[in-house]
Amino acid sequence: MTLEPVLARIDADLPQALERLQKLLRIPSISTDPAYKGDCDTAADWLVADLASIGFDATKRPTPGHPMVVAHGKGPGPHIMFYGHYDVQPVDPLNLWTSDPFKPVIDDGKIYARGASDDKGQLMTFVEACRAWKAVHGTLPARISFFFEGEEESGSPSLIPFMRDNAEELKSDIALICDTGLFDSRTPAIVTMLRGLVGEEITITGPSKDLHSGMYGGAAMNPIRVLTRIIAGLHDDQGRVTIPGFYDGVPDLPPELAAQWQALKFDHGDFLHAVGLSQPAGETGHTPLEMLWSRPTCEVNGIWGGYTGDGFKTVLPSKASAKISFRLVGQQNPDKIRENFRALVRAQLPADCSVEFHEHGASPAAQMSTEDPAFEAARGALSDEWGIEAAYVGCGGSIPIAGYFKDILGVDAMLIGFGKDDDAIHSPNEKYDIESFHKGIRSWARILAALS
Amino acid sequence: MTLEPVLARIDADLPQALERLQKLLRIPSISTDPAYKGDCDTAADWLVADLASIGFDATKRPTPGHPMVVAHGKGPGPHIMFYGHYDVQPVDPLNLWTSDPFKPVIDDGKIYARGASDDKGQLMTFVEACRAWKAVHGTLPARISFFFEGEEESGSPSLIPFMRDNAEELKSDIALICDTGLFDSRTPAIVTMLRGLVGEEITITGPSKDLHSGMYGGAAMNPIRVLTRIIAGLHDDQGRVTIPGFYDGVPDLPPELAAQWQALKFDHGDFLHAVGLSQPAGETGHTPLEMLWSRPTCEVNGIWGGYTGDGFKTVLPSKASAKISFRLVGQQNPDKIRENFRALVRAQLPADCSVEFHEHGASPAAQMSTEDPAFEAARGALSDEWGIEAAYVGCGGSIPIAGYFKDILGVDAMLIGFGKDDDAIHSPNEKYDIESFHKGIRSWARILAALS
Repeated sequence: MTLEPVLARIDADLPQALERLQKLLRIPSISTDPAYKGDCDTAADWLVADLASIGFDATKRPTPGHPMVVAHGKGPGPHIMFYGHYDVQPVDPLNLWTSDPFKPVIDDGKIYARGASDDKGQLMTFVEACRAWKAVHGTLPARISFFFEGEEESGSPSLIPFMRDNAEELKSDIALICDTGLFDSRTPAIVTMLRGLVGEEITITGPSKDLHSGMYGGAAMNPIRVLTRIIAGLHDDQGRVTIPGFYDGVPDLPPELAAQWQALKFDHGDFLHAVGLSQPAGETGHTPLEMLWSRPTCEVNGIWGGYTGDGFKTVLPSKASAKISFRLVGQQNPDKIRENFRALVRAQLPADCSVEFHEHGASPAAQMSTEDPAFEAARGALSDEWGIEAAYVGCGGSIPIAGYFKDILGVDAMLIGFGKDDDAIHSPNEKYDIESFHKGIRSWARILAALS
Repeated sequence: MTLEPVLARIDADLPQALERLQKLLRIPSISTDPAYKGDCDTAADWLVADLASIGFDATKRPTPGHPMVVAHGKGPGPHIMFYGHYDVQPVDPLNLWTSDPFKPVIDDGKIYARGASDDKGQLMTFVEACRAWKAVHGTLPARISFFFEGEEESGSPSLIPFMRDNAEELKSDIALICDTGLFDSRTPAIVTMLRGLVGEEITITGPSKDLHSGMYGGAAMNPIRVLTRIIAGLHDDQGRVTIPGFYDGVPDLPPELAAQWQALKFDHGDFLHAVGLSQPAGETGHTPLEMLWSRPTCEVNGIWGGYTGDGFKTVLPSKASAKISFRLVGQQNPDKIRENFRALVRAQLPADCSVEFHEHGASPAAQMSTEDPAFEAARGALSDEWGIEAAYVGCGGSIPIAGYFKDILGVDAMLIGFGKDDDAIHSPNEKYDIESFHKGIRSWARILAALS
């Protein structure tokens, strides 16, 4: 089976491929918000139908949360499993969007919508590559399976049980994951290091009810004061996280990897400048790229308490809350970090305050083994498509599925994606470049040819 | 004109007085929220009509914000001006109310509604006292005027200009203000010390847009981290506020006043226990009563930033905000404190962050002169009604109108009110005891007799 007619078919079919993507983007499959449960289901149904139309044996598989989609297609050669997620992030603050997040707009070579880049646009690149192979050659170039989840943006509570319960079915020779980006707008990349993630929500309670700050202010403990003091103490003056044992299992960066990253000529100034900043905010003594790929973090993702509406209300609130996440690297243990964080919070509680913790997922960092020849084969295919040598890189985000493929199924995963730094994923006005979509489809066609 | 038939009339008319109060309570006159502007207007109209029905020359007076109500009634003797406010606090968190905040419920000797105690129930005590005098004697016991505002809960932006523009009309021999409480559930009180208030809203901006904490976490400055560090630094380990010059103008408590307050046998344990606390949270070395009446405070009344909905979102937000208020005592200068607070915030801003400040009102503390014989006359009347000696007390809240009467009009003000500590003003399930309402009306009837 030859590659060239497949690439030609992809080029010719691009307008139709974009129309299909827009259909998927119109479904508001926000997994973290229970109000959108039906929409997540609709997105799963849409994928089942689309894969079936290419000849896959596709099924929607129930879980206690949002459904999985699993599909199998016959073909020669190795068994390749492709993973993506059809759920998306919430859209607030909605007023900062210039168009409806769920009415895709194509403008100036970009498609704007929530999920355009993360991850609907990306997952459709592989679907479209399969469609083109099937259309040109009447068959797939390899035995190909799909595995889509709908809870990636809400901690994947059903993922591990589902993978364990269906391990035989999901086992493959290699897994392909499309949820990452190009290294820069011209350089394709394969991610070999991923940070882990621990999510925590804490609520501090002081008085048993909201109080009038005139009648109680000064005498009654304000939980916002307690919460802000705890959060302020989570970093020292060098930007290091103060939780005891936090850096256990954090490796020094190997000199050869440090040298390779230096060679990438990452422009730290441009990276920060693009988001209105000029100085790296992490640990002193590390470059921004190291901070993102090889150093752990502690970030407050949300904080709230008291009166937050228009005007002013002199309330002394009963409760104050925060959502806090930790990005992990190397061998950091998610459970230990959660435990030590909670102990540190409890140790700082004044006598009259109590704390509740709510867990929002945990996954360790992942490190891929690039010794599998599939890595070099894919790197060659990517280099051919983009005309520039593909790089092995790290990733600041957490894509726990890569670790699960290894730990639960014993399968190595390759993370290849076509997002760009300015895609504004998780932000207002998320977009995906048509170039990412088009060359992404072509890249997968080439990778399938190289692997089969 | 004799007092006894007036008191009898008040007793007989109580059911009708409660019905009138409920009509006023049904109007959701939340002044801080622009959505309720029309309701504030309706509340003013209701008061104008009710005062006119007693024979007052009552008018609604426009301001750039919510209208004032001014009414004049003829009578012998001194000119007495009564002040109250018809606007109320917001009602959130609405889910903690056991009944609709604007559908008053009478249960077990209490009337539940937003504004039942603060200040609609209180202001109606004086209206009803006037109504009873008029009904029994056909005339008022003194020359009486009313002055109601509708912006007390939102910083009173129109109050000073209106008082200046209408100074001649509003001048009187004494002002009576009903927006305070009993000392305890049995002891009536006249407030002679009031804390001032400075309201500030601050917004810290870091990155120019919301970011993905995986893609930027560690390298990009998180404004929540900056905001919490600034807030955490506003108090030292002794509970003292760290703003430079903050304690300038804070007087030591005179020993005779300290002794008088000791004699009140305030139960500090009970006071805190009622709201689920056990330890005073203010400056070490002061009793809770001193913390509330004679010491300044800094409280965070609200904080917000990042994702605060259900589930989890790994956002690194662009902005984080807080509403902060300072309660002032003695000669503390509100403008100086605002200025020094802002300077302290600016001095702690990292290079990449900016701050915006938004002002929410300012008023100095007020100290009444009790040498005017009206104070002792009113104290005697209160003692007669309640059967226990009335006390001169402080007040932790800020009722700037008292200072304005003195500064703008040269009129001394007496603050007398019948609220109780458990009225839950500014909180869910606000209530006013029927006893407060009934004996409040009787108290004013006695005070009017004593002053005329």
